Amino acid sequence: MVETPRNALRLLRERHEDRVIELLRSHGALSRAELARRTGLSRATLSSIIERLLSAGAVVETTGEPATGTRRRGRPPTLLNLNPAGGLALGIDVGRRRIHVSVANVAHDVIAATSASCSETASWQERTSAALELVESLCARYHISLAALEAVGVGVVGPVAETGFVAEAGVAPRTDDDGAPDPARVVHELVEERFGVPAYVDNNTRLAALAEAIWGSGAGSDNVLYVHLSYGVGGGLVLGGHLFSGAFGGAAEFGHVSVDPDGPECPCGGRGCLERYVCMDAILDCCGADDLDHLIEQLQRADADPDGRAHQAVREAGQRLGRVVAAACNVVNPEVVVVGGPVARIGEPLLASVRETIAAYSHRSVHRALTVRGAHFTEDAAALGGIALVLRRSALLAGYPATHVGPPAGGRTSTVNEEEEWRTGSDQ
Amino acid sequence: MVETPRNALRLLRERHEDRVIELLRSHGALSRAELARRTGLSRATLSSIIERLLSAGAVVETTGEPATGTRRRGRPPTLLNLNPAGGLALGIDVGRRRIHVSVANVAHDVIAATSASCSETASWQERTSAALELVESLCARYHISLAALEAVGVGVVGPVAETGFVAEAGVAPRTDDDGAPDPARVVHELVEERFGVPAYVDNNTRLAALAEAIWGSGAGSDNVLYVHLSYGVGGGLVLGGHLFSGAFGGAAEFGHVSVDPDGPECPCGGRGCLERYVCMDAILDCCGADDLDHLIEQLQRADADPDGRAHQAVREAGQRLGRVVAAACNVVNPEVVVVGGPVARIGEPLLASVRETIAAYSHRSVHRALTVRGAHFTEDAAALGGIALVLRRSALLAGYPATHVGPPAGGRTSTVNEEEEWRTGSDQ
Repeated sequence: MVETPRNALRLLRERHEDRVIELLRSHGALSRAELARRTGLSRATLSSIIERLLSAGAVVETTGEPATGTRRRGRPPTLLNLNPAGGLALGIDVGRRRIHVSVANVAHDVIAATSASCSETASWQERTSAALELVESLCARYHISLAALEAVGVGVVGPVAETGFVAEAGVAPRTDDDGAPDPARVVHELVEERFGVPAYVDNNTRLAALAEAIWGSGAGSDNVLYVHLSYGVGGGLVLGGHLFSGAFGGAAEFGHVSVDPDGPECPCGGRGCLERYVCMDAILDCCGADDLDHLIEQLQRADADPDGRAHQAVREAGQRLGRVVAAACNVVNPEVVVVGGPVARIGEPLLASVRETIAAYSHRSVHRALTVRGAHFTEDAAALGGIALVLRRSALLAGYPATHVGPPAGGRTSTVNEEEEWRTGSDQ
Repeated sequence: MVETPRNALRLLRERHEDRVIELLRSHGALSRAELARRTGLSRATLSSIIERLLSAGAVVETTGEPATGTRRRGRPPTLLNLNPAGGLALGIDVGRRRIHVSVANVAHDVIAATSASCSETASWQERTSAALELVESLCARYHISLAALEAVGVGVVGPVAETGFVAEAGVAPRTDDDGAPDPARVVHELVEERFGVPAYVDNNTRLAALAEAIWGSGAGSDNVLYVHLSYGVGGGLVLGGHLFSGAFGGAAEFGHVSVDPDGPECPCGGRGCLERYVCMDAILDCCGADDLDHLIEQLQRADADPDGRAHQAVREAGQRLGRVVAAACNVVNPEVVVVGGPVARIGEPLLASVRETIAAYSHRSVHRALTVRGAHFTEDAAALGGIALVLRRSALLAGYPATHVGPPAGGRTSTVNEEEEWRTGSDQ
């Protein structure tokens, strides 16, 4: 067991190579300076490591201009990235009303994406089948072979614990029959069976949080608090660079933090839950708006909100949300709060109220360096988060020297950069 | 860069050895079953790894009866542990009114401990000097050589960011002069200079949380929320098995979560902060008690609290605390909430109210499997947390094949199991 110094050095160097590859997998293209900062290695050591990885074909040099919206902004011109021919990741979001699918390579390029609507009353089996068909037609259309598929990241509705779905009366997706099998388990089995690679399933709001933290409004920060405002209020936490689920998959339940100790009971078991006051329907109701577009018009044109009712309602929703986020920030002290989901389309009027309230109700050291931003992604966030999950998990789970080192296995026939489609998320 | 399968297997095996050693360093003695569960290795693979570590003297077999209070409870009889002769860790808590010092070996045995009071008006230089003298006299008394010292973990008052102290007007320790250097930096420099090994400095409440999570009331759980009730209200978070500090060292600021949006302003910049209502002085005041012993008497003897004022005040304090902890649990979903600090001596009357309130104001999936307990350690928690920090950080930072593998370097003259003293924490 006693190592000679030569062996020890070799092992150390290979660990450093691993670390570099892990960083590129997790973050996408990075500059040498950023790699030096994150690994803590000297320029000389890092240079010799990068030289070896380049000559082995594991890593390639790229120019700084991001090819797709998934890259981080503001990069210096010469970056290092994993060889895009090294493998594929598939992200699927099996939502309540819509299914999204994205295919990316290990270099974080989304090469094809699409979406389709699905019935709210469909079973999880039916939804998953629809998602698998969507993948199949997308790949056929763009001649994408999934032979190099590493794994699939899937987002589902409802809480998902590390080890499976936490069944919960009154919390499980309402479209499921009583006693139906856990959505996460159903989806997991069907997807693994179809592709013969690992499937990682997580809550789709949490996956949206991961996508925002890696490529979106939280890019560059290791601690990101994501709030999702829709028909309910959910969220996700990226802490120390990792998606954090809590002990039983229940972390980031911002919608069920109480904002009124004497408020009405909630199906979750709590009382006066935030969700009741700042969900889509409650806000529209308070504003007297027919739908979100109407509300946004009220906020943008003075004559559309003559008595200021909509402005007032949005301000109050921001205050309620802000108090809950302020408390959450005092708990986890993030660098960035990202507000996403359809209701976040309201934009600045809501965000300004949230910012102001956080400043008034959190510790100075917590809010001083905090940024509150709207989300970068919209509907496709969770599918992208599924891809992020694959890129991260595979890096963690890969045996040494796994697929990530050495020239690619080959076998894929073609990849298409369907940026236009991925950006618009148009239906098949 | 292309590895032969033989090399790949060897590297994989050595990584597994590392993982086993890391687990033993982080958790103390573990059974083979627990190691199998945590590494995910097969019995056969694990057996051959343990065989190699045993024969190299890196690991020893012990019986399950814990030797000191720092071990986990309820262990099966045969455990594996790091060789206790492998190195020493020193934990120091430089508190506001008292200094604690503990010495432990890598096998998690505390071999000596002591404490001494210090003046609230002493500078950080003076406090640190006093702490260093305390270490010196303890080692002299028990013939402990610090030649095998790996590192020192030090707790200080006030917020500490990962990279140093976050200076904060109105939050920095009040005993410091304006413009004085950061306590964490002062202590860090003096301790490293004295011992010539790395010093890891963190907030002492956070270190208490780590000690509770590893050896105390949170032992066995990876996600522990620790609340510290004293003259202020602080806390610490252990998430996914690691101490979590947040982006700028401000995580777990439970005392500054607002419990009254219209409440009085707080020096932290917030309003209606919890700390104002459930700190030592506020609770004593509400109960009409002279001190904590008087209050505990009021709660224990019916005739000492004839009008029920003390019971009512404690119940209300528990409700306020419970609402904040409920919100925090909805954010991080821990397995265990540990309530520590002097005010936690009140015990069940307070804990019962906290439990009841958490159940009423958190999501069912969050509170269903939650345990709320009083702390296991008292004053010595932060010094023990300093030791935990050393055992964890060294494992993470150690180059391969660092000090943790192979027979110990030797050179230490003697270690004394001063369990009695460590338990009572008597002064020198």
